[in-house]
Amino acid sequence: MPFVSVRITKEGATSAQKARVIAEITETLRSVLGKNPATTHVVIEEVDPDNWGVGGLPVPEFRAKLAAPPS
Amino acid sequence: MPFVSVRITKEGATSAQKARVIAEITETLRSVLGKNPATTHVVIEEVDPDNWGVGGLPVPEFRAKLAAPPS
Amino acid sequence: MPFVSVRITKEGATSAQKARVIAEITETLRSVLGKNPATTHVVIEEVDPDNWGVGGLPVPEFRAKLAAPPS
Amino acid sequence: MPFVSVRITKEGATSAQKARVIAEITETLRSVLGKNPATTHVVIEEVDPDNWGVGGLPVPEFRAKLAAPPS
Amino acid sequence: MPFVSVRITKEGATSAQKARVIAEITETLRSVLGKNPATTHVVIEEVDPDNWGVGGLPVPEFRAKLAAPPS
Amino acid sequence: MPFVSVRITKEGATSAQKARVIAEITETLRSVLGKNPATTHVVIEEVDPDNWGVGGLPVPEFRAKLAAPPS
Repeated sequence: MPFVSVRITKEGATSAQKARVIAEITETLRSVLGKNPATTHVVIEEVDPDNWGVGGLPVPEFRAKLAAPPS
Repeated sequence: MPFVSVRITKEGATSAQKARVIAEITETLRSVLGKNPATTHVVIEEVDPDNWGVGGLPVPEFRAKLAAPPS
Repeated sequence: MPFVSVRITKEGATSAQKARVIAEITETLRSVLGKNPATTHVVIEEVDPDNWGVGGLPVPEFRAKLAAPPS
Repeated sequence: MPFVSVRITKEGATSAQKARVIAEITETLRSVLGKNPATTHVVIEEVDPDNWGVGGLPVPEFRAKLAAPPS
Repeated sequence: MPFVSVRITKEGATSAQKARVIAEITETLRSVLGKNPATTHVVIEEVDPDNWGVGGLPVPEFRAKLAAPPS
Repeated sequence: MPFVSVRITKEGATSAQKARVIAEITETLRSVLGKNPATTHVVIEEVDPDNWGVGGLPVPEFRAKLAAPPS
């Protein structure tokens, strides 16, 4: 009876990529834990990068900072 | 102090249907567990069917497969 | 394809009460939204009252404050 | 390794406000619990008010009721 | 920036099995979506079977019913 | 109507620390977004470090690797 929520920043994942994520995670739970695919649900939740923070900054600013040369 | 998250595939639930889901779940928690409706929150999260997988397939493919005659 | 998470403070709900919550929420989603019970999952997550805050206070302090006579 | 999900009703929070929420919650977890900001993620999930219920009513009706004069 | 929550019924998954689930899901998100493992978090949440319902029944009753011969 | 879920690894946070996290996050949502503390809920979910993965490893192994001298 697994339920998997995958939160990612929304950046143009295609339907084919999402289908592969669903297939592979379902297979992982079957092969490692013996979970029945028929009752395994996987939900992909895409989040606007402005709404995701890491290191205390929204993702766009966090990435800009990482990319900046040290001053 | 209940908080209920209801994730469903997004398929045109109306505001009236959502209001009934909210009312009935709140009443279930009141009548069965004695929870105060004033502090009971219910959130309905509608998910694009492409982003929901079951049986290792996105919902649209899972349904097409169920509907197909055995070959 | 619903998935319902019910978070409540842990205060001795019995197995029979939890079974009734599961049955009633599943029935609500079937009768209001036409969702198939076979693919409806309901998970009850019981949280230590010390770990739940409302009004800026952990639940035990919040309740003590509500119960106190005004000074 | 904290992960914080902040669900709020969608009512026009600006990017600047969301950035401040991310910064302050990350700082709270650092100063109170010693959590490393580099591995602290904060996600803000904005919910349509029609999809959020409290007191057994969707938020717009709940607010209208609170605002109505007693009859 | 992925965050993955894996809810499963609590049935004795070992630390080695959980480590493999973490490794494989992280690898899926890297190979399919290009997500950086350093910022990929996977949390496994084990739920008492009494607290998980499917088909309107707690998991132990649901399984007993599936296993019973038709009468 | 905010609901905040704070997932952290379980490492001995005290009741006083958890109360401070609840108070500060509630205050952040009040001062930045104007959210009413009376309807702000904060839940702290403590996760066994074995059940939390980052960088493809359970937290205890991830930390051991970070602490090891380069070979």
